[in-house]
Amino acid sequence: MNRFNDLADFPVAEIESLLELAERLKRQPEPRALEGKILSLLFLSPSLRTLASFQAAMGRLGGNSFVISPDMSIHGIETRPGIVMDGAAAEHIREAVPVIASYGDVMGIRAFAERRDLATEIADREFEELATLVDVPLINMESAIQHPCQSLADWKTMNDFDVPSSGGRFVLSWAFHPRPLPLAVPSTTVKMAAMRGMDVVVLRPDGFALPEPIMAQARALADASGGRVTETEDRAEALEGANVIYAKSWMSTQHYGDKPADLAAREELTDWCVDDPWFDSADADCRFMHCLPVRRGVVVSDRVLDGPRSIVIAEARNRMFAQMAVLHRLLKG
Amino acid sequence: MNRFNDLADFPVAEIESLLELAERLKRQPEPRALEGKILSLLFLSPSLRTLASFQAAMGRLGGNSFVISPDMSIHGIETRPGIVMDGAAAEHIREAVPVIASYGDVMGIRAFAERRDLATEIADREFEELATLVDVPLINMESAIQHPCQSLADWKTMNDFDVPSSGGRFVLSWAFHPRPLPLAVPSTTVKMAAMRGMDVVVLRPDGFALPEPIMAQARALADASGGRVTETEDRAEALEGANVIYAKSWMSTQHYGDKPADLAAREELTDWCVDDPWFDSADADCRFMHCLPVRRGVVVSDRVLDGPRSIVIAEARNRMFAQMAVLHRLLKG
Amino acid sequence: MNRFNDLADFPVAEIESLLELAERLKRQPEPRALEGKILSLLFLSPSLRTLASFQAAMGRLGGNSFVISPDMSIHGIETRPGIVMDGAAAEHIREAVPVIASYGDVMGIRAFAERRDLATEIADREFEELATLVDVPLINMESAIQHPCQSLADWKTMNDFDVPSSGGRFVLSWAFHPRPLPLAVPSTTVKMAAMRGMDVVVLRPDGFALPEPIMAQARALADASGGRVTETEDRAEALEGANVIYAKSWMSTQHYGDKPADLAAREELTDWCVDDPWFDSADADCRFMHCLPVRRGVVVSDRVLDGPRSIVIAEARNRMFAQMAVLHRLLKG
Repeated sequence: MNRFNDLADFPVAEIESLLELAERLKRQPEPRALEGKILSLLFLSPSLRTLASFQAAMGRLGGNSFVISPDMSIHGIETRPGIVMDGAAAEHIREAVPVIASYGDVMGIRAFAERRDLATEIADREFEELATLVDVPLINMESAIQHPCQSLADWKTMNDFDVPSSGGRFVLSWAFHPRPLPLAVPSTTVKMAAMRGMDVVVLRPDGFALPEPIMAQARALADASGGRVTETEDRAEALEGANVIYAKSWMSTQHYGDKPADLAAREELTDWCVDDPWFDSADADCRFMHCLPVRRGVVVSDRVLDGPRSIVIAEARNRMFAQMAVLHRLLKG
Repeated sequence: MNRFNDLADFPVAEIESLLELAERLKRQPEPRALEGKILSLLFLSPSLRTLASFQAAMGRLGGNSFVISPDMSIHGIETRPGIVMDGAAAEHIREAVPVIASYGDVMGIRAFAERRDLATEIADREFEELATLVDVPLINMESAIQHPCQSLADWKTMNDFDVPSSGGRFVLSWAFHPRPLPLAVPSTTVKMAAMRGMDVVVLRPDGFALPEPIMAQARALADASGGRVTETEDRAEALEGANVIYAKSWMSTQHYGDKPADLAAREELTDWCVDDPWFDSADADCRFMHCLPVRRGVVVSDRVLDGPRSIVIAEARNRMFAQMAVLHRLLKG
Repeated sequence: MNRFNDLADFPVAEIESLLELAERLKRQPEPRALEGKILSLLFLSPSLRTLASFQAAMGRLGGNSFVISPDMSIHGIETRPGIVMDGAAAEHIREAVPVIASYGDVMGIRAFAERRDLATEIADREFEELATLVDVPLINMESAIQHPCQSLADWKTMNDFDVPSSGGRFVLSWAFHPRPLPLAVPSTTVKMAAMRGMDVVVLRPDGFALPEPIMAQARALADASGGRVTETEDRAEALEGANVIYAKSWMSTQHYGDKPADLAAREELTDWCVDDPWFDSADADCRFMHCLPVRRGVVVSDRVLDGPRSIVIAEARNRMFAQMAVLHRLLKG
């Protein structure tokens, strides 16, 4: 294992082995496993959980890390190829990335979607180009279309809370949000739940279907795992017997890159806020999940988020254990 | 010990034991004591000494730490309860704090006074509410009314410089400053010196008395320790025989929350700048103390601060050793 | 060794011993050499490589570090002596530096040239004043006139790539840049190549000669090492048989501190961009070096920077190994 980028790159058995390792490292700490090892963290987009949980993960294994982020007092970074750099930026990404990579034994990069061109972002072109500049093991800390650490943590969280895999019903529901958000989390999540062999339903309003290539990949993964992937805009149908309601907002794929049109399309959708009635026909033990940060009263009601169904803090905490497993596997084999 | 929040929560013997531990860890390093352990640091207010000294303290014990502060490129944090989050903030403190806490074995939080409502701030309501969200050992890194790490370091510094405890005269003097500052340091300091059994005098101009509940608590602590707490605006009377002049500016408690009135009240008080003549009737070995940062030529003259009476750098350095003791005690028992 | 400030402070044998140590630490990691030790990093000027490589270096040796930089939410820092601090700044450098130093076993300080007064900056007055406030081992992380870690890394890089020392021709060439840059790198570089016993040529346009005291020091170092230092504005003459072309822009010394005059002087010099033809009469194995960050298409062409002659990433990576050696020597003797 040299890249941790797309859960779908790995057989389910490899994911399960990582989850076992995560649980073992939680129960039996290995505070010297990575002594003298360095994790380079490059944030081209903002972060709280990822920033904190990666530093904590590396420290728990006896290693260390450093952080480079664009809000630091560093020289501006140019990304356009072939440009004459006579403007503000003093450094090109083609030097910055390999240099930062060269100080670490493993690297994490975060670079959000620009939300302009759907095909470019489904192909994850920016992250893939950055990846060519890195010759150490590389972790995707959220790119335009991937967020594998989140999905590994979510998988572990469902295991921890005994959410059934085969036959378990996983409803990924679009939710209202005042801003058009990237596709990385929903795209990764639908694939993760499919790989886990679940009965996955993507519940979303008209105009907000996930891109067909993502759905096709998820269906293929479900086929291989004995799961199923469907989509609907019918809330009642989707939530019937749900074991998990996983809320997430994302940009309209019909109006991708067109912010005003997206905002118009969502204007009437403020009732896509997960609340107690959503659980009426769900399984008695149905859980509420969200990757955080989450807007209270917008994406989910206070009473659901603060209630016993919510496992969002456990999900966030599992980021750390999942990433410890990934770091351990990448550096110790 | 599960919280380090208010020195007055502990018997004097427990404080003395912490000070002994601090000194032992200074002389006999334990670079693996906290290996694999993580300290989560949340700064909702700015910091230099606290930021540096906590990271250094944890590192010297073989542990690691991470820092979250509001100047990072994180999503804005909402603090109001029950709000519909359709504005700028993308995350609520009710998720942010438990998540950050969950990555560490121990947490530090800094959140300064808002300087609006005195009763709320004496009750330390904001910090106490944050504390309910944390289920790991918690350290107060300065709240509206507490700064226990500063006081523990100050106590150690007086021990280091052989400042007498029983019978030693500790003058906490208000000082001029162009801005109205919080009450945390003076409130914590008067209690600390009282617990150390000293003859504590709070020297302050009219309108700048410390809140009566704080003074009452300090008097009770002094009674238990064989010390004494008085207050005066008579400089000559206060400084007679002083062993320590501890300077600190704070907001007018008479005009608390009313910045213009506070500024008017202090307008004529620029001579509250500690200078050589202040030491004329003091003890020959009288020391000058301040928690830093300090404004030269405003709070204290250059010649005092740069002279042999000043022990402010030693005070600041002792933050690290004091905090090493607190971390060690919280995590190793 | 208690200060690492100027390569010229050390005999060549000491530098060679540091380079051997750097190589040994690269090949035979010592992940516990500095356990429990702390590196204090104070950045008064921006950084990427130095920030990352020092944290990585300390972590690889089992130590830890903390960073203070002016973009943090700290109180403004006053530097003027004898001032009444009634303005914005809440802390004076005379407290800030010794306090930050006191938390570490070793300290690094970065403070760029202000580019106002040449004599002041050649004397490195600001850094030397800061140094008087530090009583732990101190590393210059780039001051007005020194950048010894860069030069140590460059020396190692030339060794790694078998660039001949005795008789090797080292061309330090001025390059175009839209802004007037400090003299620290070229001044340190010419001295480093002289100490390595090379045939050093400073190639620069009229008005951009390096200061005579720097050149005189470099010539003396060359005399002691069997090398040679000359300067010219004749590109063809300079590049004949070159083993290294080391590009760097710097401010006009003729118009030092006069930004408009400097910009006018460089206006016509945009062809000082290193490109393939520069290598026509150079040695077949001639290398391209630069300390980074570098402006593509301005200082050097894409084809040179991306071509096989360029060793800039190796140079940057060697910062880490060079600094590991310096830290090890300062702390372990």
